[in-house]
Amino acid sequence: MNTLGQILTLTTFGESHGPAIGGVLDGFPAGITVDTDYVRLCMQRRRPGQSTVTTGRQEKDEVEFLSGLLDGVSTGAPIAFIIRNNDQHSSDYDELKDLFRPSHADYAWEQRYGIRDWRGGGRSSARVTAPICVAGALAALAFRKLLPGLQINAFTSQIGPYSTDSAKDMDYADIAIDSNPVRCPDQELAAKMEEYIHELRKEKDSTGGCVTCIVRGLPAGIGNPVFDKLEASLAKAMLGINAAKGFEYGDGFQSASQRGSEHNDAMRMENGQVTMLSNHSGGIQGGISNGQPIRFRVAFKPTPTIGQEQHTVTRSGENTTVAAKGRHDPCVVPRAVPVVEALTALVLLDQWLASGK
Amino acid sequence: MNTLGQILTLTTFGESHGPAIGGVLDGFPAGITVDTDYVRLCMQRRRPGQSTVTTGRQEKDEVEFLSGLLDGVSTGAPIAFIIRNNDQHSSDYDELKDLFRPSHADYAWEQRYGIRDWRGGGRSSARVTAPICVAGALAALAFRKLLPGLQINAFTSQIGPYSTDSAKDMDYADIAIDSNPVRCPDQELAAKMEEYIHELRKEKDSTGGCVTCIVRGLPAGIGNPVFDKLEASLAKAMLGINAAKGFEYGDGFQSASQRGSEHNDAMRMENGQVTMLSNHSGGIQGGISNGQPIRFRVAFKPTPTIGQEQHTVTRSGENTTVAAKGRHDPCVVPRAVPVVEALTALVLLDQWLASGK
Amino acid sequence: MNTLGQILTLTTFGESHGPAIGGVLDGFPAGITVDTDYVRLCMQRRRPGQSTVTTGRQEKDEVEFLSGLLDGVSTGAPIAFIIRNNDQHSSDYDELKDLFRPSHADYAWEQRYGIRDWRGGGRSSARVTAPICVAGALAALAFRKLLPGLQINAFTSQIGPYSTDSAKDMDYADIAIDSNPVRCPDQELAAKMEEYIHELRKEKDSTGGCVTCIVRGLPAGIGNPVFDKLEASLAKAMLGINAAKGFEYGDGFQSASQRGSEHNDAMRMENGQVTMLSNHSGGIQGGISNGQPIRFRVAFKPTPTIGQEQHTVTRSGENTTVAAKGRHDPCVVPRAVPVVEALTALVLLDQWLASGK
Amino acid sequence: MNTLGQILTLTTFGESHGPAIGGVLDGFPAGITVDTDYVRLCMQRRRPGQSTVTTGRQEKDEVEFLSGLLDGVSTGAPIAFIIRNNDQHSSDYDELKDLFRPSHADYAWEQRYGIRDWRGGGRSSARVTAPICVAGALAALAFRKLLPGLQINAFTSQIGPYSTDSAKDMDYADIAIDSNPVRCPDQELAAKMEEYIHELRKEKDSTGGCVTCIVRGLPAGIGNPVFDKLEASLAKAMLGINAAKGFEYGDGFQSASQRGSEHNDAMRMENGQVTMLSNHSGGIQGGISNGQPIRFRVAFKPTPTIGQEQHTVTRSGENTTVAAKGRHDPCVVPRAVPVVEALTALVLLDQWLASGK
Repeated sequence: MNTLGQILTLTTFGESHGPAIGGVLDGFPAGITVDTDYVRLCMQRRRPGQSTVTTGRQEKDEVEFLSGLLDGVSTGAPIAFIIRNNDQHSSDYDELKDLFRPSHADYAWEQRYGIRDWRGGGRSSARVTAPICVAGALAALAFRKLLPGLQINAFTSQIGPYSTDSAKDMDYADIAIDSNPVRCPDQELAAKMEEYIHELRKEKDSTGGCVTCIVRGLPAGIGNPVFDKLEASLAKAMLGINAAKGFEYGDGFQSASQRGSEHNDAMRMENGQVTMLSNHSGGIQGGISNGQPIRFRVAFKPTPTIGQEQHTVTRSGENTTVAAKGRHDPCVVPRAVPVVEALTALVLLDQWLASGK
Repeated sequence: MNTLGQILTLTTFGESHGPAIGGVLDGFPAGITVDTDYVRLCMQRRRPGQSTVTTGRQEKDEVEFLSGLLDGVSTGAPIAFIIRNNDQHSSDYDELKDLFRPSHADYAWEQRYGIRDWRGGGRSSARVTAPICVAGALAALAFRKLLPGLQINAFTSQIGPYSTDSAKDMDYADIAIDSNPVRCPDQELAAKMEEYIHELRKEKDSTGGCVTCIVRGLPAGIGNPVFDKLEASLAKAMLGINAAKGFEYGDGFQSASQRGSEHNDAMRMENGQVTMLSNHSGGIQGGISNGQPIRFRVAFKPTPTIGQEQHTVTRSGENTTVAAKGRHDPCVVPRAVPVVEALTALVLLDQWLASGK
Repeated sequence: MNTLGQILTLTTFGESHGPAIGGVLDGFPAGITVDTDYVRLCMQRRRPGQSTVTTGRQEKDEVEFLSGLLDGVSTGAPIAFIIRNNDQHSSDYDELKDLFRPSHADYAWEQRYGIRDWRGGGRSSARVTAPICVAGALAALAFRKLLPGLQINAFTSQIGPYSTDSAKDMDYADIAIDSNPVRCPDQELAAKMEEYIHELRKEKDSTGGCVTCIVRGLPAGIGNPVFDKLEASLAKAMLGINAAKGFEYGDGFQSASQRGSEHNDAMRMENGQVTMLSNHSGGIQGGISNGQPIRFRVAFKPTPTIGQEQHTVTRSGENTTVAAKGRHDPCVVPRAVPVVEALTALVLLDQWLASGK
Repeated sequence: MNTLGQILTLTTFGESHGPAIGGVLDGFPAGITVDTDYVRLCMQRRRPGQSTVTTGRQEKDEVEFLSGLLDGVSTGAPIAFIIRNNDQHSSDYDELKDLFRPSHADYAWEQRYGIRDWRGGGRSSARVTAPICVAGALAALAFRKLLPGLQINAFTSQIGPYSTDSAKDMDYADIAIDSNPVRCPDQELAAKMEEYIHELRKEKDSTGGCVTCIVRGLPAGIGNPVFDKLEASLAKAMLGINAAKGFEYGDGFQSASQRGSEHNDAMRMENGQVTMLSNHSGGIQGGISNGQPIRFRVAFKPTPTIGQEQHTVTRSGENTTVAAKGRHDPCVVPRAVPVVEALTALVLLDQWLASGK
């Protein structure tokens, strides 16, 4: 249940306020050199406390590799790694022990298991995405060797009312999105998004947003025709991210109002290569990559933890109110960008291996 | 790869123009009476040739059960079933043998496997959804016994420019949606949709659309917190349907522009029961059902097969054009409605069993 | 639950007296030509009624392929096939409806599922090995192309008190074992075994036995170091055969009384190749093939169905006796030989694909 | 590949001389109190350096739980744990870097992955059984609550030429087997075994042996009829233990020489309960438990590491010899006893959950 993938599998573990979080990556190809600086970089991009738009929680997020490497090279054995939880203010959460926070997993978890780790959301905390970033970095390193041309780039394409121009998606992918704290490639828009987040923080409120991801350099022929389709596997992975509410690829929900004559991607030979004249399909047809760039978008809801007072109920069944204290992001979207990239790398490497490449 | 589910697994097989399509449903509870009339009804709802808006292909779609039943009652053994392909005009497809149809799986499949069953799309045909409807009917029959209050209702919520009012989603779910050929609960809108489809047929074009699904009566506590989340499993299943381009649940992509104070579902005790005062979450929080109705939406692209001439390439790498002949739906959405319901029943029963209920 | 394998998966279905039995083979490589005569031959070897030592039940056992093939070549889509049950004497079993046969699955099944298909053992019948033989034949055909040197040979190495000389195992593997009805490569011994079976039939009794299997031509490097070891996968597959009671590879149980200096396989370079000077290991070390022949043995219990009167109980909890009527093998071992070969081919192809070869 | 189980899954990781070994146990029921003293005891029983018959390697083997527990109670989240490798003499192994030890995994691993962690056997070391003991202890603790009557007892039934009387298997199971260092319930025989091991140590040799396991208190109805049979799952798990060469249950290989009239377990009502008058079946029929004690036996080969000089080859393809230095067990069997118990608990809990109990 806590495992993603078929051939390359990532099993994660850990709660927000337990001793450590981590993962086991199994089925990883042997002979891949693990560049630990790169892994650390991927981790830092997800880490809170990076800028004024994110929470002040200071996590060192140092990764310790426990197995599967010999002098920094993968051996084919499972790669296990842990990240200690070293900035825990469990007492911040004491008052949450006996109530359910609105739009959090609290109530649903307790109905599922009868017992709940209330400290910082426990297993349902966004902290569980940290091991995903480690594993995603390893997958990206594997592709550096196996498929050097592959490029996976995600960016913030919407925050609240501010949305990028999707017609420019392909241009955006080339831009160094870390140049601004919201990770939006349109610098002007980025400034507005940042300001909006600061306002929301003052109003003790939060906002949703979207992340768009572009994959270039994936050859045609990766994926499966039924159930384990490339897009279905991406959708499952993305909806596994905390706060994700939707997934679409290619023209997505827009396709619903299109005509076939408008949506279809005509084909032409160009320099002896099969080429699509457009990419409404988003690089996938019938569950399998068609050689065009993969393009998809993920929607995130506003952070449920807000400083405003909200109605809720206690575990013993009494009405009450709750208002969040402490450190909270008004918007998770910028931090979701590296998580989307990491999951994309994992899904693609799994499907790559499954396609016998 | 052709299997859906963890505990309740459906493995499907079959191509559009092979001898038969079918499936094996394993992990199905013992002691469930299989009402074959109900199964037949579910099949008929998906079947083409039902009305003026769908293709004229006349398939009998008679299901033969091969195993797992004793006097019509499930025994715990895998339930296998087949549906013969009896209205095959393979020669219709002869000219497609050596070219790739735009926005079809043809090219991607051939890159994946090096060999392709070109007759009617082969394994990538929408015909592969027929076994899903059989299995979904069985899952629904299991719930009749295991959880009698469960109700799964899908309907057409958009076709081209015509879209239902999502504020009325909960009301729509009660309406007998089969009363019109497009399966839209807003009768006035349905008439426009139908007309629109007829126009498109004349123009040799096609249209996309959306299906919305509402599940009532699912108790809180069904699902998983990480990776195998209820919404992630639904997303994977729905994006496995032919032509699906997007999935969202609750307020979905709308959430991206919302504030937390607006999106959060406040909680209150009502008659001794925990109740949410709104359902922006769509009945799922942290991967687990919260007792509110599940609500999600699936986007479909326009049918890629159109009668207009389109640019494409041959297998031997020459430019050419193609224009579809024969029988084709200008819009698959009405026929996707029972498929969405079937997959929902399968995913829910799998997660129900996995949650130890 | 009814699925074997990780990458190459075989899902079987069907009961002894239902409409049909069959299977779905998924993950099978594309581009393999399916020689249906070879498949038929593999089926015939397992089929009852072949000789005087086996049951008289006349099954045609004709295989119908339903999917996954185009002009007899695999397409990468799942290959489904069925075998109709056409010689059913269900009424033979009517008196077994309400009692549990000793050392059959009857009682255990009913405790598991609460309902039982009593006709001919239902899902627990040895008839379920027929689809295994079809799938094994397909796996063998794949190896013909992928690894032409591979040879899988099983033979009867024990029936009751008559046992072959295991020191000659490697010589036996070359002999055409179908030249006698018990499938024992030692012709003299075979005659005694045959006579013994005839005696037992007269005495309304049955006997156990062993099958030995030798695999040549498998290169080193196939398998996995932990849990999914090559020997563990073989053991699981073999103990899935009806009536199997034990599995050993290499020197097996004999190893328990050996010393390391005696059991270890010393290594030497020979013609530039790494060679083992002995093969006590049976071709597998640490879960992975080492390039030497794979050698293992499977023990089978005597057929539980005997004509002698035995004490047993009814479903309603009363003491009674039962004596089998009708057609029954006094010894299943000769018919298990092709099943062992089929499962070996399936396990090896799965591990071959998983090892990225 | 490094995962055992279907619903309750154990994924292990770690090499002999890496930073740590450990595991992730997923699907474990919520609400189970984890008695850490009991876990520590199970670990100590496997640990080397316990007595004069085992290696002198002093491992503290302290388990650190990283997740899945709240105040010592399982929450339904995955339980991860690690054991640091703190007594590593990697330099002991330097000379093994460039040669393959006979009957070790060295050569096969390198053929599989192209790279090998030579230090102490790497991932193929018997040290990988330590996490199994932790997970097995947790499974046993779950059964204490879910099925209090369940008893799992393994013991050494053979070492070299010394073998217990299998007719007494059921009596043996009650004896405190840890009262002697070889863990054999027949005290007289135990003394001989111990002496034999001391002799072998002097002769720089090693010996094989067998472990027998008895499970009492498992109700009828646990298991599956095809492929995932209870015995097949046990066989797979047991052949996953380092040095295991064979598995048999009930009368096992003995069954091959028995007659049906001798092997069959007649049934009788006793005090209103269905009872078998014998247990040749070993408590399992048709893949499902029948309510009688489960009884099986596992064969282990002699430790391949011996002090005598053996022929072998180097990585660069030259003939050489090797003689082990350092600390090595002449017999692993006594230390395999708790591993067999641990795996039995894991397999049974997995099948218990899969059987919907």
